Amino acid sequence: MLVDGRSTTLITVADRGFQYGDGCFTTLEVRQGVPLFQERHLQRLQRDYTRLRIPFDQTAALHAELAAMAAEGGNGVLKVILTRGAGGRGYRCPEPPQPSRVLSFHPMPEYPTAWASAGVALHLCKTRLGINPALAGIKHLNRLEQILARAEWTDPDTPEGLLLDAQGCVTEGTMSNVFLVQGGVLTTPKLDRCGVAGVMREMVMELAAGMGLRVRQRRCRLADVYQADEVFLSNCLIGLWPVRRLGEHAWRPGPCFQRLHAAVANAKQEAAACAA
Amino acid sequence: MLVDGRSTTLITVADRGFQYGDGCFTTLEVRQGVPLFQERHLQRLQRDYTRLRIPFDQTAALHAELAAMAAEGGNGVLKVILTRGAGGRGYRCPEPPQPSRVLSFHPMPEYPTAWASAGVALHLCKTRLGINPALAGIKHLNRLEQILARAEWTDPDTPEGLLLDAQGCVTEGTMSNVFLVQGGVLTTPKLDRCGVAGVMREMVMELAAGMGLRVRQRRCRLADVYQADEVFLSNCLIGLWPVRRLGEHAWRPGPCFQRLHAAVANAKQEAAACAA
Repeated sequence: MLVDGRSTTLITVADRGFQYGDGCFTTLEVRQGVPLFQERHLQRLQRDYTRLRIPFDQTAALHAELAAMAAEGGNGVLKVILTRGAGGRGYRCPEPPQPSRVLSFHPMPEYPTAWASAGVALHLCKTRLGINPALAGIKHLNRLEQILARAEWTDPDTPEGLLLDAQGCVTEGTMSNVFLVQGGVLTTPKLDRCGVAGVMREMVMELAAGMGLRVRQRRCRLADVYQADEVFLSNCLIGLWPVRRLGEHAWRPGPCFQRLHAAVANAKQEAAACAA
Repeated sequence: MLVDGRSTTLITVADRGFQYGDGCFTTLEVRQGVPLFQERHLQRLQRDYTRLRIPFDQTAALHAELAAMAAEGGNGVLKVILTRGAGGRGYRCPEPPQPSRVLSFHPMPEYPTAWASAGVALHLCKTRLGINPALAGIKHLNRLEQILARAEWTDPDTPEGLLLDAQGCVTEGTMSNVFLVQGGVLTTPKLDRCGVAGVMREMVMELAAGMGLRVRQRRCRLADVYQADEVFLSNCLIGLWPVRRLGEHAWRPGPCFQRLHAAVANAKQEAAACAA
């Protein structure tokens, strides 16, 4: 683990990441020492800290540390957290802020292979996402909604939950984005009011467009999910998982999922091979 | 500073307070070694960690540390943070969780005395509070909304900003609760959808009821604020501040404020004297 370039597992209590969740993060898959889709992750991180007005300017150090940690780690998950750094008591931002960067390496989660082939059961979360356009899309450190949602179920055969927003619109999974296919059109919920705009979500939209699929972001209701021909989830670690069950509703992995799943697997292999 | 009873300024990066803002906090005024309204603060903390389902059971240690730190500190601010403790990657709660407690002592903020007598100017925040009943009222560690709101203005003569929720209802200040007086009735916004239910807010409602004032919690609109005879703010460190200006609207400190201000000052003196 690296905190501002030093090898330590500790951070100051005064860090605003700890005091207020004042920061953002991203999580990359590392294959044989290569962080997959690194540029996309760093771009998303930059978009997020810019929106939070965290004046992070240690990108050269971050890139070097990320490359070194990935090379050393082999296969696994690399998590990067950026915060506004240490500050005094109170919400007012320290002036000038000295942002912190924290890198950590973790084992790759071992999911049953059937989840990617036959699909997963989805829990419908009672916890709703608050609507806040100023924070929507950002992978920030204020994650109590996801924590409360994830605590709603314990069945180990249900790996994910579906989150609606305060107005009942389908938004995302607790750790993934959601896609619907209906009449050959690929739809994913708009994330202009809440939710996390995942790196894999963006990739899936691009891959689908490249295949000639119509892709749209819009407000989705549960009825849209129930009526969809296919439902699947995306995130950088899981890739894509088809949804096979949500309450009384059931699906099989469909043709759009199959094509996109193969395209994502391909993109991961190419990314690992190109950078190696 | 004390982390789980040890004198250190550092905490593990794996603490879920840092990873996700997974915890809650409270902030007490300490006068000559006495933490004011300690029981109320500890009750609020307990209510909050219970709602977050953090199984904190180190209350004896917390009480002892709080008393020792307050006695040593003399005059100042004592902040207590409780988190779900260290955990692995992912939103799922560690099983069993080992909650962390962090106590820190800070100087008392030095506000101009005129703010409590003549009143303060209030900034009307553009940042809105997301609506989430599951988190409403809790003084939790997910405070990006307050941070973005507090970053909206820099004028040192404007110490506080007024926050509306996503539906335009007046909710609170960035670090205080808000009260309106209209026709002799004391009103404070309901905090069932968002906001922090402050210890001083509760005290003000009790003191007002004890004076025979009608007290109610309800949805408030900006028009209610503009039409109020008196507007004032509460928090445990500032006590009460009357609002003298919000945009084009102006008020003078009124009779309800004066009585409650004296009652709060009295309660603080009694608390300091009783416990000493």
